[in-house]
Amino acid sequence: MNPITEVTLLLNEDICKANIQRMAQKARRNGLAFKPHMKTHQSAAVGDWLRNNGVEAITVSSVKMAEYFAAHGWRDITIAFPCNVRQIDRINKLTEKTTVTLLINNLHAVEVLQKELENTVKAYIEIDTGSGRTGLSIQQLAKIKKLIQKLQRASSINWIGFYSHPGHSYSARSSQEIQTVHELVTEQCRILADKLKSEFGTFEICIGDTPCCSQGTGFEGVDAISPGNFVFYDLMQVQIGNCQVSDIAVAMACPVVDTYPERLELAIHGGAIHFSKESMLIDNNESFGLAAFQKENHWELIDNKTYLKSLSQEHGIVSCSKDAFEQFQVGDLITILPVHSCLTANLMGTYQLSDGTILNQMSSNY
Amino acid sequence: MNPITEVTLLLNEDICKANIQRMAQKARRNGLAFKPHMKTHQSAAVGDWLRNNGVEAITVSSVKMAEYFAAHGWRDITIAFPCNVRQIDRINKLTEKTTVTLLINNLHAVEVLQKELENTVKAYIEIDTGSGRTGLSIQQLAKIKKLIQKLQRASSINWIGFYSHPGHSYSARSSQEIQTVHELVTEQCRILADKLKSEFGTFEICIGDTPCCSQGTGFEGVDAISPGNFVFYDLMQVQIGNCQVSDIAVAMACPVVDTYPERLELAIHGGAIHFSKESMLIDNNESFGLAAFQKENHWELIDNKTYLKSLSQEHGIVSCSKDAFEQFQVGDLITILPVHSCLTANLMGTYQLSDGTILNQMSSNY
Repeated sequence: MNPITEVTLLLNEDICKANIQRMAQKARRNGLAFKPHMKTHQSAAVGDWLRNNGVEAITVSSVKMAEYFAAHGWRDITIAFPCNVRQIDRINKLTEKTTVTLLINNLHAVEVLQKELENTVKAYIEIDTGSGRTGLSIQQLAKIKKLIQKLQRASSINWIGFYSHPGHSYSARSSQEIQTVHELVTEQCRILADKLKSEFGTFEICIGDTPCCSQGTGFEGVDAISPGNFVFYDLMQVQIGNCQVSDIAVAMACPVVDTYPERLELAIHGGAIHFSKESMLIDNNESFGLAAFQKENHWELIDNKTYLKSLSQEHGIVSCSKDAFEQFQVGDLITILPVHSCLTANLMGTYQLSDGTILNQMSSNY
Repeated sequence: MNPITEVTLLLNEDICKANIQRMAQKARRNGLAFKPHMKTHQSAAVGDWLRNNGVEAITVSSVKMAEYFAAHGWRDITIAFPCNVRQIDRINKLTEKTTVTLLINNLHAVEVLQKELENTVKAYIEIDTGSGRTGLSIQQLAKIKKLIQKLQRASSINWIGFYSHPGHSYSARSSQEIQTVHELVTEQCRILADKLKSEFGTFEICIGDTPCCSQGTGFEGVDAISPGNFVFYDLMQVQIGNCQVSDIAVAMACPVVDTYPERLELAIHGGAIHFSKESMLIDNNESFGLAAFQKENHWELIDNKTYLKSLSQEHGIVSCSKDAFEQFQVGDLITILPVHSCLTANLMGTYQLSDGTILNQMSSNY
């Protein structure tokens, strides 16, 4: 195995596969269709690990990502992003061989699609269950009904139900707080079904955030789940109360390029174009990552005081405890757990497994 | 020209060329060598515009970027990042045909390089003139002298002087505050020269931040400049007091995918993987960009109230003034000026010129 010479995103295959298996089992146990979101890993190889756990339908966040996974043999893909009607040509091409479910949240999109679609698509309406990002709230029942009616009249669109990403679960700070969000979300799903079933019969509801899907118990009213981040987890998920550090499947190996004994800091190659500028408060310090070491087959934090304190384009500055500082010299590698694995993975483009194998991502080979 | 169907980074060639010409003229007027930093644009085509202004030597932030520009004919390249000795094989390959200047800030790097270098390199020592990121301070004179002596004894290393990136100029909020930083930085350059000239003769000092290079007056003690961001500028540079909105050469065209009249918000395709999560406070709101429109041959802000208020991986939410909100419908494009053009450009990978031409970047074709 070649030594690591530059910033490298390490992927612990065993942890990732365990995370996948746990979520697949939970879906089965709760009678839920499992349509994992591929936006976190963006990798056909990780997709195969999902396939080995019985996954047949997947979720993505863009037409481009749908094209990539369709090219890797996936035939049932939900594009969990409000339909961008300007991409109609790519949607028409994609739907020639692939069953695609779009998120259609407004009448304008229905009108354009009705006119321009060359193949049939499925459609979810997106429900805003509290995140305040996109979709209609269940209070807007008249608007929802009008949209369903319009979708049902569009001959190339097969309306199948609702999709929601309860992103507000990311404000939780414990498993109990996630459960509270989860209960409010699933309650909205049941209310929606109750209010619409007499007029529109049965339909499917899919929810998509990792915190509720990982920690939530009780899925009455929900038919399918599409979490994404759970394959890798990250420090944000630890902070939310959603996983342990030992569940994190990715870490950055960064060369130490300078040391500053007078301020107990290390300069590393590993900046905003590698980690992303997503940060979180850890012990009142803005942190872009925490330093870790390999223990058995997982990563453990060195301590709470050794953290990535600032990033510029390619530079990272690691603030260290005295003990930690003394462990590193120029030319060493330091391992940093990322705050938000989705954005870090997107920037890095490839993964290196423990045996040195490189896994490609969408951006690296497509 | 094909219509824009998805998130696209627009580049106004005229503004970019004017920014380049202005900086090249300023360097000439002040008798400074002009070694522009390529990290902002990362594009051979924009490099050609610099070449057309007499540029022969350039600055980059990684070995990879040096390889890219070397492959596009550049023969004098400074890698303005503390030398990562793990990349010695790539450095040896690169220096076969290209004159490379490394930043060598510690004795360990000299030792490794002395043993492993196959070709001669030039070397700067990095000086921390106040940013607190990397390099030695001029107070550490004994350490600096010892490092110079060690560099001078290394047969494959030709020590040529000092490099500094006064990144603390980014804390300025007016042209006057930038000038204050600039004066303190150039004063340190002169002190360094005074203290070392009797022992080490003459050497070169290069400084590299866009604010000081754009706004600073009086460069006594400085021999070369290597600003990068000035080719595009961005909202952060406007906030620093370093340029006008009309000097910004790049903007994001984003499809509007949903509208929320009850909260005067637009959902756009354009998220953290397009803009980066770099934000700034504008009117006390955390902002990831400001909405703009084309006026004659530049962009103007719609108003101060129409801004990119939140980003997730692919979603952006634009908070609008009432007037602005009414101008947009689902299917339209909205133009957003980025907070930090370097990070946005790095994520986008290509530029679209006004005539529809696509310019590639390092990440898109290398």
